[in-house]
Amino acid sequence: MSRDVVLDVDTGADDALALLYALRCADLRVRAVTCVAGNVGLDRVVRNTTAVVGALRSRVPVAAGTGRPLLTERREFTRVHGDDGMVGVVPPGEPCSLEGGHAVELLRETILGAPDPVTVVALAPLTNLALLARTYPEVVPRVAELRLMGGSIGPGNVTPVAEFNVWSDPEAAAVVLAAGWPVSMYGMDVFYRPALDSSGVAALRGSADVAGRLAGEILHNLAVNGPSGRAYLGDAGLVASLGVDAVTWTELPVTVDTRPGLTRGMTVADRRGPDHEIDAREAWSPVRVATEVDAAALVSRYTQVLVRH
Amino acid sequence: MSRDVVLDVDTGADDALALLYALRCADLRVRAVTCVAGNVGLDRVVRNTTAVVGALRSRVPVAAGTGRPLLTERREFTRVHGDDGMVGVVPPGEPCSLEGGHAVELLRETILGAPDPVTVVALAPLTNLALLARTYPEVVPRVAELRLMGGSIGPGNVTPVAEFNVWSDPEAAAVVLAAGWPVSMYGMDVFYRPALDSSGVAALRGSADVAGRLAGEILHNLAVNGPSGRAYLGDAGLVASLGVDAVTWTELPVTVDTRPGLTRGMTVADRRGPDHEIDAREAWSPVRVATEVDAAALVSRYTQVLVRH
Amino acid sequence: MSRDVVLDVDTGADDALALLYALRCADLRVRAVTCVAGNVGLDRVVRNTTAVVGALRSRVPVAAGTGRPLLTERREFTRVHGDDGMVGVVPPGEPCSLEGGHAVELLRETILGAPDPVTVVALAPLTNLALLARTYPEVVPRVAELRLMGGSIGPGNVTPVAEFNVWSDPEAAAVVLAAGWPVSMYGMDVFYRPALDSSGVAALRGSADVAGRLAGEILHNLAVNGPSGRAYLGDAGLVASLGVDAVTWTELPVTVDTRPGLTRGMTVADRRGPDHEIDAREAWSPVRVATEVDAAALVSRYTQVLVRH
Amino acid sequence: MSRDVVLDVDTGADDALALLYALRCADLRVRAVTCVAGNVGLDRVVRNTTAVVGALRSRVPVAAGTGRPLLTERREFTRVHGDDGMVGVVPPGEPCSLEGGHAVELLRETILGAPDPVTVVALAPLTNLALLARTYPEVVPRVAELRLMGGSIGPGNVTPVAEFNVWSDPEAAAVVLAAGWPVSMYGMDVFYRPALDSSGVAALRGSADVAGRLAGEILHNLAVNGPSGRAYLGDAGLVASLGVDAVTWTELPVTVDTRPGLTRGMTVADRRGPDHEIDAREAWSPVRVATEVDAAALVSRYTQVLVRH
Ligand SMILES: [Ca+2]
Ligand SMILES: [Ca+2]
Ligand SMILES: [Ca+2]
Ligand SMILES: [Ca+2]
Repeated sequence: MSRDVVLDVDTGADDALALLYALRCADLRVRAVTCVAGNVGLDRVVRNTTAVVGALRSRVPVAAGTGRPLLTERREFTRVHGDDGMVGVVPPGEPCSLEGGHAVELLRETILGAPDPVTVVALAPLTNLALLARTYPEVVPRVAELRLMGGSIGPGNVTPVAEFNVWSDPEAAAVVLAAGWPVSMYGMDVFYRPALDSSGVAALRGSADVAGRLAGEILHNLAVNGPSGRAYLGDAGLVASLGVDAVTWTELPVTVDTRPGLTRGMTVADRRGPDHEIDAREAWSPVRVATEVDAAALVSRYTQVLVRH
Repeated sequence: MSRDVVLDVDTGADDALALLYALRCADLRVRAVTCVAGNVGLDRVVRNTTAVVGALRSRVPVAAGTGRPLLTERREFTRVHGDDGMVGVVPPGEPCSLEGGHAVELLRETILGAPDPVTVVALAPLTNLALLARTYPEVVPRVAELRLMGGSIGPGNVTPVAEFNVWSDPEAAAVVLAAGWPVSMYGMDVFYRPALDSSGVAALRGSADVAGRLAGEILHNLAVNGPSGRAYLGDAGLVASLGVDAVTWTELPVTVDTRPGLTRGMTVADRRGPDHEIDAREAWSPVRVATEVDAAALVSRYTQVLVRH
Repeated sequence: MSRDVVLDVDTGADDALALLYALRCADLRVRAVTCVAGNVGLDRVVRNTTAVVGALRSRVPVAAGTGRPLLTERREFTRVHGDDGMVGVVPPGEPCSLEGGHAVELLRETILGAPDPVTVVALAPLTNLALLARTYPEVVPRVAELRLMGGSIGPGNVTPVAEFNVWSDPEAAAVVLAAGWPVSMYGMDVFYRPALDSSGVAALRGSADVAGRLAGEILHNLAVNGPSGRAYLGDAGLVASLGVDAVTWTELPVTVDTRPGLTRGMTVADRRGPDHEIDAREAWSPVRVATEVDAAALVSRYTQVLVRH
Repeated sequence: MSRDVVLDVDTGADDALALLYALRCADLRVRAVTCVAGNVGLDRVVRNTTAVVGALRSRVPVAAGTGRPLLTERREFTRVHGDDGMVGVVPPGEPCSLEGGHAVELLRETILGAPDPVTVVALAPLTNLALLARTYPEVVPRVAELRLMGGSIGPGNVTPVAEFNVWSDPEAAAVVLAAGWPVSMYGMDVFYRPALDSSGVAALRGSADVAGRLAGEILHNLAVNGPSGRAYLGDAGLVASLGVDAVTWTELPVTVDTRPGLTRGMTVADRRGPDHEIDAREAWSPVRVATEVDAAALVSRYTQVLVRH
């Protein structure tokens, strides 16, 4: 069964791995790619995204979106992926062209224009998607699922309790979690687990297709220079999870802490079980949280799609 | 000197008084009117606004915008102006037509398309304008001034420290105050001061023009049934202030408290003077705050524009 | 009518002025003086307090209390009163002796041991009094009135909205305001208004009594070097108000904002009047707030007590 | 090696189990027991505590302390242990007598009077100990260790993120964690793990000593009627951990969230490791957190002390 997807990205090495997979996976029809500022600035995100899409000669429309979070200033977390965010990998060929309109307009048209409900893959701070949900709430019932990389129900990475994508724009994350579309959250609890070994990376680098080779180069550089020293799939694990039953999803009430201070950007989940009453003063939304992952299955799926002979 | 203005409204009696003035004042070219949910719901705002504009046979484009605040649910403050928000006054004639696009798109096109920088008159919760500033930051340098009814540097009305328009969507207000355009804040400190006496109301009711008569009916009903029992100008005082030097503006650093709890929606001003260091951890913006008002001058200006013989 | 009082102080020039008055005023029986850290450290407060009491050869018991706020670290606001906090004035003679026990114990014994309910005069951060209220709640019904210098229902001094004594230990202030004793709040709204002119200062400096002369020296130095350049009574205005009907007290619901951030230490008052419902989620206490002051009457009272021929 | 301990309790079934162990364990010299309001009110805590101590004919001094949290009102969590908090178990014999002075005074005298530094065992909301640390900071260097039952670095029980003892008085917990004494935190992460099986409970019920029999009755009733349906040691596990190397302690930076709202009472730990910079705006204290527990070893130790033949 194939499905229509749109991807909202802040490319970046992780997002590039995800894009390469999505554009090559026969089960996914990528109908739009939208850019948002994240760990690198919007201009760089646009450059990286159009370079990756262009390298694959894909005709998927790409639009630029928002250059900063809703409320607070954009802050970069680290330069772990190099100044370009691409761990130094330069996609070959010409970048694809950029749509004239705003990402929010492209998302609206694509989602309202699709014959079936669309899966929104969110791999970046959620500013574009919050603007979409508030400006055009009529898209919400046309979204089959919003699957987001972000959040944590355990430790965070930017702060002791907050993950980068949610922490970057907590107000946007709060809007998106409560918008009414079904939300799946693939966060820090599983993010770093699926990783390729050196033979997997080598197989990708030897792929007959440019998409596989690019993925191989990025994973190689991640293993050599990345924050974990491992060829981890990251955002691409989320995209691969669309096509294989490899994630344990636990439905939990989740809310985003938007207050300034200690816990800003924390995704608070109520894990106490049904015996405990939920605090009605908070805006809890039911979220499918990825609590366990079959890392090998995701890695296998990823390489299966991208290694061509 | 005349100027181009756009009005963002949640009509309502106060906004109607302001619209009637703006559409009849020779110094103002009203280029767009946009609707946003406020003390009444968006559908009702659209109905009231198109009714007022239609009663004057104006061709100004009117668009619907956002139906709820960015983060928290919409809450009505009071029903002081009746279920219709119009103190029972029904404008005569046919409503004007509504633009197909979103308020944010109409504001963008109008502001970017105008030959000179435009004055934005904000008479409602600031959701539309926050979405505009974040989706299309390129409009900001094309705004001559954003003059908003809202906030307080003394007591509030909805809470001990918060005024309705800011309290309704504090995140939006924070975005708008810090967006970079020049902001003038005409809030609770002056809002209720300009008011007509009974002879002023009678003069309006006897105007030869429908605009004056409508204003007179609304003011009459406000005096009879309104929260203050007085025929106060409210939002219309702000619009009248565009054409007469009747307000004492004090430039102060202002920030909006968006935290949940006691002070949510408070516009905190630093009135301690230049000897005191400003707290750099907060997002202070320089705002011209209306601290005193020549009520008689505003009332005189208002009636001068709307009483026709 | 005379009354029993205890004073909790962070002497300091202002507190010295208040102590001199209280110890000389025939209407007040000072039964204890307790020290707490404030704008100067506890050691310095003890030194200054015992020096002032010693200069007057008073036998009132003096005890040291708490050296820091309940929750956050002690921070000095300014050095406006010099390193010693006494604007350079050195009381003559020997310091009085210091009780062995803690201020909280002295307050407990004094209040429970007094024949009639005692008036507590609080001229400093409220740490001692919060510890008293929580450790020995049985004293609360034995307190006739807690009259505190602190807070503001308008602008603050340390921050745009917070006054020093409350801001220094907001948790303690919250405890004290809600403890159940009748609270009168003499804060920034009136604090700087009562001030002596140069002839008043000269009269004090020429007093036949050491108390008057000391007060005169302090006021002289305040006028020459103080933050306002005026010989203002400050804390002493509150003490003088015990003996003359010179303050307009307005009973208002008041709560202390203890949250970190923008409004920490703000005394939020609900001035909207009885038509407005109070927010039951906050801990409002009824407080008599000094909203107007007859500055001349307080100055006259102060000099009448301290100028001796 | 034996050590001097004081116990601060809100007896309650859990605290009773801990008291019985502490008073019978040859390695512990219990020098004082102090009472504080917790899941049951102070009067009931005093009654239960003196009953348990009296049943063992111990002469340890017992004092009453504080009846409510520092800032917010006392709220009961649940009635899981019955109206008396003792799961219906009535200790035999006469209650011991109660000291006249306040718990804070007894703690001060005991700790300052002991020849060696004292271990403080905190099994309840931390109000007494916060008052102690603020009123008499000179005791801090005389405390060998403060070992507290409370907090969590995973899910909470009263709220999704907060455990009862810390949530009950977060301000007190913040004071206690940052007071400067070495803190060990035995919280929700391990609290429910050590539990007796039915033969263990039977052995205790058949003990030749009243202490063992009482412990057996309480554990029996906990297994029958308690929240977990298991004969868990709870607070007693912490006390047993003093005499056997059965807990994995991980030193982590910990802070207590005292803000109102979603995360109030959460003990936030930074588990990200030494690569991550700590946020200097928060008051982190180094805390030894019980992250793993050898449940069998603690149960074995507990029964070894309390089963007598
Ligand atoms: Ca990303
Ligand atoms: Ca309005
Ligand atoms: Ca003082
Ligand atoms: Ca307990």
